[in-house]
Amino acid sequence: MKNTLLIVGTIAYDDISTPFGSTQKTLGGAAVYSSLAASYFSLNAQIVSVVGNDIDSAYLAALKSKNIDISGIEKIEDMRTFYWKAKYHNDMNTRTTLDTQLNAFQNFNPVLSDNYQNADMLLLGNLDPDIQISVLNQQQNRPKLVMLDTMNFWISQSLNSLQKVLKMVDIVCINDEEARQLSQEHSLLKSAKYIQNLGAKYVIIKKGEHGAMLFFEDQIFIVPGLPLSEVVDPTGAGDSFAGGIMGFLTEKNTVDIESIKLAMVYGSTLASFTVEKFGTENIFSLTKEKIAQRLHFFKNLTQFELEI
Amino acid sequence: MKNTLLIVGTIAYDDISTPFGSTQKTLGGAAVYSSLAASYFSLNAQIVSVVGNDIDSAYLAALKSKNIDISGIEKIEDMRTFYWKAKYHNDMNTRTTLDTQLNAFQNFNPVLSDNYQNADMLLLGNLDPDIQISVLNQQQNRPKLVMLDTMNFWISQSLNSLQKVLKMVDIVCINDEEARQLSQEHSLLKSAKYIQNLGAKYVIIKKGEHGAMLFFEDQIFIVPGLPLSEVVDPTGAGDSFAGGIMGFLTEKNTVDIESIKLAMVYGSTLASFTVEKFGTENIFSLTKEKIAQRLHFFKNLTQFELEI
Repeated sequence: MKNTLLIVGTIAYDDISTPFGSTQKTLGGAAVYSSLAASYFSLNAQIVSVVGNDIDSAYLAALKSKNIDISGIEKIEDMRTFYWKAKYHNDMNTRTTLDTQLNAFQNFNPVLSDNYQNADMLLLGNLDPDIQISVLNQQQNRPKLVMLDTMNFWISQSLNSLQKVLKMVDIVCINDEEARQLSQEHSLLKSAKYIQNLGAKYVIIKKGEHGAMLFFEDQIFIVPGLPLSEVVDPTGAGDSFAGGIMGFLTEKNTVDIESIKLAMVYGSTLASFTVEKFGTENIFSLTKEKIAQRLHFFKNLTQFELEI
Repeated sequence: MKNTLLIVGTIAYDDISTPFGSTQKTLGGAAVYSSLAASYFSLNAQIVSVVGNDIDSAYLAALKSKNIDISGIEKIEDMRTFYWKAKYHNDMNTRTTLDTQLNAFQNFNPVLSDNYQNADMLLLGNLDPDIQISVLNQQQNRPKLVMLDTMNFWISQSLNSLQKVLKMVDIVCINDEEARQLSQEHSLLKSAKYIQNLGAKYVIIKKGEHGAMLFFEDQIFIVPGLPLSEVVDPTGAGDSFAGGIMGFLTEKNTVDIESIKLAMVYGSTLASFTVEKFGTENIFSLTKEKIAQRLHFFKNLTQFELEI
């Protein structure tokens, strides 16, 4: 019997332009990238999200074709799908958000059906922390592992609720700027300690092309970014990373520091594929062989023998 | 018999201010940081450099006390020592140079004495590429390994000479912005390929707090930056890194990819100590025990077991 990974997060229409080109109304959102990354593991992935009347049913069918359970995606007939428009600058590490329309997410307050209340593991994508708490509280048993993502908006607008949910989760996975904003510390080591003290046992700080860091008690683990010839579109990298981590851990059904380290390598591998093409194109069409090959490349990137 | 590492580079008076404080007329320069880092290995370190009439003899005596051969440091009686004034900004990754006075370095054109012409390994610190070529050409036998550092000024002002010396060395060690400037490529992978094609077999790209990358043929190795609670003064990090690499390789007397990987871990370890205090304070007063302890911490930062 496969373990269940429940993923709550956005489904979006993205308009993205980068120095390499642009897309219009491409499928995006945290739940999409995370579930696609998780789909490469042996598990039962479920999405909780909401879409509007303009959603292309072929997009949802595509997710279903990857064995992702989409029955938890609500469709609101008199609203449109979440919309996000952004432009990446030449260095690909900075972007400007040109438009955000919450649309169907304005009143998002999911009520989980029975078969969504027994997740083995839970990925709380970047959303209002009160919704994250609600989804967690609707679980009949506390999942074995809960990961949370958040963003600057909730840090500045909903800090109390965010602090409440931080005490309820196991892993916080945020980027460097968010960690600095939340902690008011420049040093990422100090930022991580601050967030650990807020309640999360494991803190993962994402640094874009520079990789990601894991903090657990007094241990630190770092996975580098994979050097790439071309980053075509960074959208979804962080969500692929999170989905890969949770996918690996859900399949493995283990929660310990060594498993989480290895999960980060899987997550980084999947994220490295995502950014090589626009939107979901690459993360949609991987094979286990391609993933395995890149995992070994990742291992060789950092391994050495200390002679003393 | 110990191997000889010849280090050519600046000796400077630095005025540095950071968010943590400031120093006036502290000893600095590439040759100083590199030779101090190298002094923790079993070797004979020699400096080729120049100082002015204002040099504090106690500073040179301090280098000598670390078994560094300072007989190749020329003193010019009617000039002052190289002077550099800079201010680091809050993120510690960016700095503004407020003043640079070449002084004694204006006419630097070293003529090596006999005992400086038989180096086993050679570190060509950031200087006019014509001087780098001259020092290399004065060696009676081509050293077993030559590393070169350079900077934006030489890339823009002396590109022909720089391209000439790049064909003569084994390792180029430069920072990310310099690599991008030299290659006109944003991707560091493409930058490294470009520099490899210019002639250097090994290309090391430094990324400050994000660590460093080694490129050799189609292999890549990455050493992360050590997460620190406080970076007090980044000055000298790159030179300590280079000195640590060359110190390790000179002691080991081996040049191969696995040795260079390990050398980078030593270099990163030494650089991480340098930035924890102002100027040379920390790199001057380390112990082998402290270094060994941090090397093991470094190893744990990135090591994992792939199960497939």
